[in-house]
Amino acid sequence: MKKIAVVGYGNTKFTKDELPIESLLLESTKQVFDTTRNLSQDLIDGVIVSTNDNSKYLGAILSELTGIKPKISHTVEHLCSSGSSAVISGFSYIASGLADTVLVTGADNIGNPGQILEWDKSRGEYDRPIYWASMFTKAHKRQFNTTDEELAIVSAKNHKHAMDNPHAYTHKPYTISEIMNSKNITDDLRILDCSYSCSGGSSILLSSEETAKKFTDQPIWISGIGQKTNSASFTKNKLTTLSSSVMAANDAYKMAKITSQEIDVAEIHDAFSVCELMAVEDLNFTEKNTGAQYVRNLFNTEDRKINPRGGLIGAGHPLGATGIAQIVEITQQLQNKAEKRQISNANHGLIHNMSAAATSSSVLVLKS
Amino acid sequence: MKKIAVVGYGNTKFTKDELPIESLLLESTKQVFDTTRNLSQDLIDGVIVSTNDNSKYLGAILSELTGIKPKISHTVEHLCSSGSSAVISGFSYIASGLADTVLVTGADNIGNPGQILEWDKSRGEYDRPIYWASMFTKAHKRQFNTTDEELAIVSAKNHKHAMDNPHAYTHKPYTISEIMNSKNITDDLRILDCSYSCSGGSSILLSSEETAKKFTDQPIWISGIGQKTNSASFTKNKLTTLSSSVMAANDAYKMAKITSQEIDVAEIHDAFSVCELMAVEDLNFTEKNTGAQYVRNLFNTEDRKINPRGGLIGAGHPLGATGIAQIVEITQQLQNKAEKRQISNANHGLIHNMSAAATSSSVLVLKS
Repeated sequence: MKKIAVVGYGNTKFTKDELPIESLLLESTKQVFDTTRNLSQDLIDGVIVSTNDNSKYLGAILSELTGIKPKISHTVEHLCSSGSSAVISGFSYIASGLADTVLVTGADNIGNPGQILEWDKSRGEYDRPIYWASMFTKAHKRQFNTTDEELAIVSAKNHKHAMDNPHAYTHKPYTISEIMNSKNITDDLRILDCSYSCSGGSSILLSSEETAKKFTDQPIWISGIGQKTNSASFTKNKLTTLSSSVMAANDAYKMAKITSQEIDVAEIHDAFSVCELMAVEDLNFTEKNTGAQYVRNLFNTEDRKINPRGGLIGAGHPLGATGIAQIVEITQQLQNKAEKRQISNANHGLIHNMSAAATSSSVLVLKS
Repeated sequence: MKKIAVVGYGNTKFTKDELPIESLLLESTKQVFDTTRNLSQDLIDGVIVSTNDNSKYLGAILSELTGIKPKISHTVEHLCSSGSSAVISGFSYIASGLADTVLVTGADNIGNPGQILEWDKSRGEYDRPIYWASMFTKAHKRQFNTTDEELAIVSAKNHKHAMDNPHAYTHKPYTISEIMNSKNITDDLRILDCSYSCSGGSSILLSSEETAKKFTDQPIWISGIGQKTNSASFTKNKLTTLSSSVMAANDAYKMAKITSQEIDVAEIHDAFSVCELMAVEDLNFTEKNTGAQYVRNLFNTEDRKINPRGGLIGAGHPLGATGIAQIVEITQQLQNKAEKRQISNANHGLIHNMSAAATSSSVLVLKS
């Protein structure tokens, strides 16, 4: 398969402000133009927008706003993993030979319509993500004796990391005790176990191997891709494993020809605290039933390997932007440009982005 | 580039009935399963949904409804050319090597939200497609002395063709006089100059060269692809040329290594009667300023070369399905399976699908 690189990127601040979707898309795209060497509009063959917004024709609108006249242009939607889905679509246009350079921009507004799971009638009145997260948490506690403190550590760690991420929704630190005593939303989850819905946008520029060097001296290669959709209704899946994530990760590692142990840094989909405990196991960073201890060790040793930008809990979760923001972070880490968040000697990175109770997952492996 | 074929297809009836988007997606997909040799769910790597519907996560929902557990799954939206955009996305997944077999299903309901051009503030209160079509028509009349009779011939021809299309919205024939005397919607357009917004769904199955023979003895190859987005606001473009279509067609012919004269049959985007007169020129089937005479000749000689299924005017225009329904028709023509609609000796076919006053266009060349 052709080699394809991330060669540019941009982020908006993630915020609770209501902002027009067009503005959110434009701001991170403008940063790509401002920071990418030799980039001009005529070099961009594709403009892919990732969003849950109900507005139509945003690929053409973003193109017009930025003066791009692309061949390929459309919106991609796949709920919370719209961003990674759009990036993989962009990758495929270049790998196929239909395009050479593709802009992928994702954004959502704080009030975006992807937050209510209205498609799954089997959920009855429990139509918000908090309900599946609560069932996951209850099942995890039963099977692995997971404690509220272990859940709170995820949130404390990721809020701490977010303090060094200038684009994060919040820069406020929380102690484990503050998190454990925050408002109860369900029997098993408190408000500080949840990621913040918010407004935000993120962009990356993808390019073929031949063209990448024109734009950057530090192309970051997409070396592994895995995706899986198991269902739309979470009630069919096991509650203690992110099974679509396991399958996506295995395919991504295989394509990248590496093992999980070679991953130096990862952004994983901590929509709720329990998701990070499950993901570090399901992505094979640590053995089953050791996720809580693994995350506790990271926290105690101030190791930023998992979710250095603060993950979804610390940085916020504008649905269509999240998968792209994760790639921006890993790109910066592998370019040694992550400033206060920098992991030392990072050569391989991973992003894990999922939708709707892990009924779908995408995993990408990046390397410097 | 890898060879990729259409190896299966399905269509719903196009109708004015309000139907759930899930039902529309499911019905044409079920036909693909019912009519494609050796097809089973586990052979499908990707499920791409094309729609303007506001529902989210439809790729996963269609997968669950049909028992498919794909790797790749998402929605593609690009207004009226969502369908061709989704097919080209599916093509790129296979050509890249990320997938081997991809289902592309498009649908929209009669009340779909893609019909109002709310994104273009420069349109003021003229926010429906009829207004740009009216400006195109007025400009065409001024520049080429186009008559109301010449516009009416497009509609009479396409309504006549639709009588032999079992899936068409209407099977009613109209005389030129009836069309010219139908209700005036604007100064320059009557109701029978317009395509019918309607409910409908269409599916195709795409496969690699290696796998195609498993599914069919008559794979239809996608040999040429061209796409272009010039803008989102039609006021920036010339009113007498579909300039994005010209560029898309040139790229598609070049990739297919053929000239326009080798196209035996074409489905073109006659959202309004004037669009067909412009498209036959802009796709280079006939010289500039001879479109009306060209279409009159087809009508008089009962030649079905252009829009044999009835086009958008005769068959109806469920936005997300249209580009896919066009490909289904051309596939049937090239397989010599188009029954009463059959063109003799059709080896090369073309589809032309566009959005929003031709600010975007897709052109695909297919061959047997």
